[in-house]
Amino acid sequence: MTRFKLTLEYDGGPFVGWQRQENGASIQQALEEAVFRITGETVPVQGAGRTDAGVHALAQVAHVDVEKAIEAEKLRDAINFHVKPAPIAVLAAEVAAPDFHARFSATGRAYLYRIVNRRAPLTVDRSRAWRIGTPLDAGAMHDAAQVLVGKHDFTTFRATLCQAKSPVKTLERLSVHRIGEEIQVIAESRSFLHHQVRNMVGTLRLVGEGKWSKADLAAALEAKDRSEGGPTAPPDGLYLTRVSYAANE
Amino acid sequence: MTRFKLTLEYDGGPFVGWQRQENGASIQQALEEAVFRITGETVPVQGAGRTDAGVHALAQVAHVDVEKAIEAEKLRDAINFHVKPAPIAVLAAEVAAPDFHARFSATGRAYLYRIVNRRAPLTVDRSRAWRIGTPLDAGAMHDAAQVLVGKHDFTTFRATLCQAKSPVKTLERLSVHRIGEEIQVIAESRSFLHHQVRNMVGTLRLVGEGKWSKADLAAALEAKDRSEGGPTAPPDGLYLTRVSYAANE
Repeated sequence: MTRFKLTLEYDGGPFVGWQRQENGASIQQALEEAVFRITGETVPVQGAGRTDAGVHALAQVAHVDVEKAIEAEKLRDAINFHVKPAPIAVLAAEVAAPDFHARFSATGRAYLYRIVNRRAPLTVDRSRAWRIGTPLDAGAMHDAAQVLVGKHDFTTFRATLCQAKSPVKTLERLSVHRIGEEIQVIAESRSFLHHQVRNMVGTLRLVGEGKWSKADLAAALEAKDRSEGGPTAPPDGLYLTRVSYAANE
Repeated sequence: MTRFKLTLEYDGGPFVGWQRQENGASIQQALEEAVFRITGETVPVQGAGRTDAGVHALAQVAHVDVEKAIEAEKLRDAINFHVKPAPIAVLAAEVAAPDFHARFSATGRAYLYRIVNRRAPLTVDRSRAWRIGTPLDAGAMHDAAQVLVGKHDFTTFRATLCQAKSPVKTLERLSVHRIGEEIQVIAESRSFLHHQVRNMVGTLRLVGEGKWSKADLAAALEAKDRSEGGPTAPPDGLYLTRVSYAANE
């Protein structure tokens, strides 16, 4: 048996999310079916992050155990062939240590959230960014975002259905910068609560519009109450961009 | 009557192209129908460039004459409302001089061609770039491309169905640069022959793969024969990015 580490890219638009669900096509199921077609083995594909419906990945990581003797490059190409026409791609496959676990071995995760700040609807970026028509002050958003960086109880930014044992997380980075009409939010943490990035972005929008001050954001965090946070940003703009592991993994 | 200049963005994927055709939905028709719903007027929307099926625009320019009294911003928002769900957006609308003509007044056009140079299939960029699996030397492509810059008979890179009176054009710029796994080709000219950019890109691919030298490209240009050029690159990677006019237009 060989454990393979897979680096994955996907367009989350057509899926119910990473995880297998009764109500529609998931990325996990599409990959497991492709592996079955190649190996005849029914095995779980374990992902580092369970991205929600509509959320994209530029470098999700997963692992899968295969009995059949197959080279990593062959497995990569075969999954890419059999997963068609689903918009999922294996960017890289490599042999991993037997105790490597895509989710539990991960030491860090990074997300990008893309906002397109303009009045006109999206065309080529439709379902790939959040369009906000009102002018946003990205500098004010970045400045306020720094109150969220560090170790905090993030209950205010946690989905009520979140299953994590603790709401305490250490946010390593939350930066906001403008590139023309696009505003990019980058979030880095060892792990995130369910909807944490989308809830932080939805709240930072209020700061960008001038409706909230930095102090309002700090008070919302301190309240430890989801109802004190801003709305959840749509999944369209969210991309899982990196999963980190210890140097030898 | 007021003549409006419209700056347009669209995802060319679902369309037969800019121009009205019997066999499917065109961008021009979608816009003309939106204008009819707003004004009750059946008027042509004239575009600067007749982009082909699958070709995108980030800043196409068009003009339209409207009898109904309407402010430019209202027209922009109303077209954006009525054109839904087609992936077309009016980025800007402004009142133009009565003799402004989107196509005939244009003094320059710029296109971007996006190649993603990797083995894995495309996901978030599907239908928005040309994936080429074999490694390409972008530096060699750029160097060779310079033999096409200047005033030449571009018959070798002209679609056989092209209706232009003359195959002689002055190519102002043809640059190739790599950004990570993406290779961008930028082409600028007063005007282009039908399929000229896609035929140049399809031929530069041969240079990038090392199959053609710079001298081969020069000989192909000199042959003035379409069959001496490389294949036509797919429409997916092509974006009309700018149409220029004299300063007062």
